[in-house]
Amino acid sequence: MDNNDRSNLNQRISVDCVIFGFDFEKLNVLLIKRKSPENGRLNQFSLPGDLIFETENLEQAAIRVLHDLTGLKDIFLEQLGAFSVDRHSNEEDRIWLRAVREQPEAHVITVAYYALVNLTSFELKPAYFASSASWQPIDEINSLAFGHMNILNNAHKQLRTKLKIQPIGFNLLPEKFTLSQLHKLYEVIVGKALDKRNFRRKLIKLQIVKKLDEKQVDVPHKPSNFYAFNTENYRKLVEDGFDNFGF
Amino acid sequence: MDNNDRSNLNQRISVDCVIFGFDFEKLNVLLIKRKSPENGRLNQFSLPGDLIFETENLEQAAIRVLHDLTGLKDIFLEQLGAFSVDRHSNEEDRIWLRAVREQPEAHVITVAYYALVNLTSFELKPAYFASSASWQPIDEINSLAFGHMNILNNAHKQLRTKLKIQPIGFNLLPEKFTLSQLHKLYEVIVGKALDKRNFRRKLIKLQIVKKLDEKQVDVPHKPSNFYAFNTENYRKLVEDGFDNFGF
Repeated sequence: MDNNDRSNLNQRISVDCVIFGFDFEKLNVLLIKRKSPENGRLNQFSLPGDLIFETENLEQAAIRVLHDLTGLKDIFLEQLGAFSVDRHSNEEDRIWLRAVREQPEAHVITVAYYALVNLTSFELKPAYFASSASWQPIDEINSLAFGHMNILNNAHKQLRTKLKIQPIGFNLLPEKFTLSQLHKLYEVIVGKALDKRNFRRKLIKLQIVKKLDEKQVDVPHKPSNFYAFNTENYRKLVEDGFDNFGF
Repeated sequence: MDNNDRSNLNQRISVDCVIFGFDFEKLNVLLIKRKSPENGRLNQFSLPGDLIFETENLEQAAIRVLHDLTGLKDIFLEQLGAFSVDRHSNEEDRIWLRAVREQPEAHVITVAYYALVNLTSFELKPAYFASSASWQPIDEINSLAFGHMNILNNAHKQLRTKLKIQPIGFNLLPEKFTLSQLHKLYEVIVGKALDKRNFRRKLIKLQIVKKLDEKQVDVPHKPSNFYAFNTENYRKLVEDGFDNFGF
């Protein structure tokens, strides 16, 4: 599809993506800034998103937005739900909508998705709907354009809930990781300290990670062993109807 | 709002409601039939739904559809997600869309909600978007218009999942119920037999029902005691972060 031909956009329906990334320290979210059409200044942060083309369905639109920013395909992506876009509360939002939308006052619905990516595996690309994109620690995000803060809070809550019934956190890690990195990931998502011994004990019981014959190199501490997600054992658990992956 | 003034409808966004009801035997879904604009025959079953008015948000539209059909307010209602309306697969759907929609070929998004009601507490009302409405056992529904079967299957799955972490099933019961009725309700939702003794044991442990000083009357068997949902104890459990309500 030619994304530069913007004539075939549905002016009433957009998608917005909450893209989570983990840098081994913090949980981050990919945010964009749009250039103000009036003064060229960079606007408030917002979630990456776009109106949908008439020729694509909702999920295809979300995959397109993600791909345009990250170059990634086949990543973990789930719908969060539909939200009415807040086009009244914020003056900067109204200016932006008047400048770039055919029907700035129209009731627009945005369908939100959340995605989990390994942020160490790619470089961010500029996209036609974003003049700049950057990772922001989720704890430091206090306000977003278009009522996106509500969407972000929903996504964060959904990520925490989902983690209890499906080990989706592995999508945020590289293929090889240490148990400390995995432990840290769970701590930053659930937002509290998790006892290291209990964490490892449950991992061993579940058998959803396998030890690799490889250690860290060039680290300033005793090198840790690498592990990988054990897809086969995980599938067996799912087939048995098991869904308690909380720590 | 005057629902007969249809000039202010957003032609691109609709809501559809999966309304679950329990008749003490089966799990039922409220379906409507629309009159074919061509021959006056009643169309295929579909979920109740309508385009949204420009002046209402998504949830308000869903509440309106529900209220118009049932007269009920303040009922359990949750968003399921957004779906692209299938307007291509079925010839009857195409005829209907051409007859009643301003832009029959337009890409319409429908936002689906599911609701839980006590079906013994009210009479169905005819609504302007439905010439007939009726309860259908979920196990006997094999096809629906506009790809609604996909929405129904999603709602059914969500109901089962949600029941494990939140005792939402009580919304399907009258205020007073017997433990047998509650047990039957859980069995029909999860779709399998549940050991009666274990079920009662867990209920006692959770303390989310309280015994009332009242028994059934005019029943052909030994009258059972009535129970009610214990809102206070349930709130305490939620405050403690407890979320394991599966049986």
